[in-house]
Amino acid sequence: MSTQSIILTLDLLGVFAFALDGALTAIRTARVDIVGVMVLGVITALGGGIIRDVLLGQTPATFQDWRYLVTALAGGALAYFLSRQLRHLATPIQLFDAAGLSLFAVIGATKALEHGFGPLQAVLLGVLTGVGGGTIRDVLLNRVPVVLSANSRLYAIPALLGAGVVVLADTVGLGSVWFAVAGALLCFSVRVLSLRYRWNAPLPPGAPPA
Amino acid sequence: MSTQSIILTLDLLGVFAFALDGALTAIRTARVDIVGVMVLGVITALGGGIIRDVLLGQTPATFQDWRYLVTALAGGALAYFLSRQLRHLATPIQLFDAAGLSLFAVIGATKALEHGFGPLQAVLLGVLTGVGGGTIRDVLLNRVPVVLSANSRLYAIPALLGAGVVVLADTVGLGSVWFAVAGALLCFSVRVLSLRYRWNAPLPPGAPPA
Amino acid sequence: MSTQSIILTLDLLGVFAFALDGALTAIRTARVDIVGVMVLGVITALGGGIIRDVLLGQTPATFQDWRYLVTALAGGALAYFLSRQLRHLATPIQLFDAAGLSLFAVIGATKALEHGFGPLQAVLLGVLTGVGGGTIRDVLLNRVPVVLSANSRLYAIPALLGAGVVVLADTVGLGSVWFAVAGALLCFSVRVLSLRYRWNAPLPPGAPPA
Repeated sequence: MSTQSIILTLDLLGVFAFALDGALTAIRTARVDIVGVMVLGVITALGGGIIRDVLLGQTPATFQDWRYLVTALAGGALAYFLSRQLRHLATPIQLFDAAGLSLFAVIGATKALEHGFGPLQAVLLGVLTGVGGGTIRDVLLNRVPVVLSANSRLYAIPALLGAGVVVLADTVGLGSVWFAVAGALLCFSVRVLSLRYRWNAPLPPGAPPA
Repeated sequence: MSTQSIILTLDLLGVFAFALDGALTAIRTARVDIVGVMVLGVITALGGGIIRDVLLGQTPATFQDWRYLVTALAGGALAYFLSRQLRHLATPIQLFDAAGLSLFAVIGATKALEHGFGPLQAVLLGVLTGVGGGTIRDVLLNRVPVVLSANSRLYAIPALLGAGVVVLADTVGLGSVWFAVAGALLCFSVRVLSLRYRWNAPLPPGAPPA
Repeated sequence: MSTQSIILTLDLLGVFAFALDGALTAIRTARVDIVGVMVLGVITALGGGIIRDVLLGQTPATFQDWRYLVTALAGGALAYFLSRQLRHLATPIQLFDAAGLSLFAVIGATKALEHGFGPLQAVLLGVLTGVGGGTIRDVLLNRVPVVLSANSRLYAIPALLGAGVVVLADTVGLGSVWFAVAGALLCFSVRVLSLRYRWNAPLPPGAPPA
């Protein structure tokens, strides 16, 4: 399996996870019909990658390769038909979201490095790719985005760590697809651990208690 | 009249309809001054086309041809001065919105095909172009977008049908400006009929009653 | 000092002012942790310029030059550590916001002219660059954007005047960096005076009293 097809596979996995996440979040937090479920699944799934590719000055992969859209639609449809089973479970949504975040953060950073971006900018693009889809989801659902909320445990920090591993490996000349996988696993683990053990980032000095 | 100038005319009609729609929606749902009315009219009118052109990798038509901006400003200004008459009428807003949706869905799909996008992606870009301006309008007004709300009757589905006609005609080798007009009429009719007869898309299985 | 480096300096000043503004607004209006403060600072600071460069068809300056991101991070970090002192003061936030608005409006218009945009479109791009960052900030904080609110005094109008000075000077053949500075000062003055003397733009005819 070539590096290119490993990256495509991981990218499509991220699309599928975020499609499930976006569609289930829509079902859980708003009164949406089948169109709303599918639209929100597709936008959550493809939003981060579209932002990434527009900022890289490329035609978004979504519009060049039909597998992205089909994968996103499949995720949305699965969520729609399983909604009765999954509606009351917050955990699957959080795991799908963590998976999407992790895969997109490392792929965003990888693509930025391929396009000659500097290390700092590559990390930023990785984080933007990771948090972009979920942020659009929350804005459309009229909620404060997870990435900004002090009650959402760690969200941008795991993405930063995952993208950071990729960029660091590249900087010291070790760039390979295995560091992308390691970065994604690190991001996923830190996100899930922060949910499990209620880790929070520090509040500004003088912030009122909750 | 060449195909190009028919498309430009339809595009400007869509801009005008969405400018009226965005400006009247602003007046009706929020306390906005003349600047807010004009800004929201212009953004609703030009947002979908800007998204479309950025995703196509082009300088947005808005910035290449002054007629787009002047048309949008004219629509906003007309809404401002007619606001006393139109304030309490929901119907004109809905008709302008349906017209913008229809014209932008077929033009978005047409432009995507011209740029060599696949059929699925062309339909997606058509729908995005159609619903983009109104979605930005609703996000800026801090409302759940029409496209996601189960109480808004059919919205994305008419756009899907309109863009679908254009793409289908092109796929079977019948691409012509008349299919764009037919697609727009189909989209407009389905949208207006769904408002009139309160058609809704199905809710997810197990969704609570309204 | 070359024109290019004067523009870069002004651009970075705008980034710094908007980073302070976005971060302090986050601290003041929502319960955000250090990540939320930094993210909102960076997005407010870089959002307008990214929109500008994407619409110009360029790789955003943010991703080409690390000084943008470092400046934005520095502004966010300063706001975080000074939040106890600045939390209850609305005035500094408003001044930083006015500075960012002014600098970005004139730089956006200047870059649009350099890329051959027409005068009307250059003014539009200047206003979009100026109001873009703050609008994303408000959308993410789930507020009606300042640019749309009738209670926010003049906001888009100063940006329009500032961008207008630059475009007018260029149209009559006087384009120079000093007109950019003059435009920024005009924008800043009108914004601050409108806050001080509670100037408002007219409401639509027949609008209900506050």
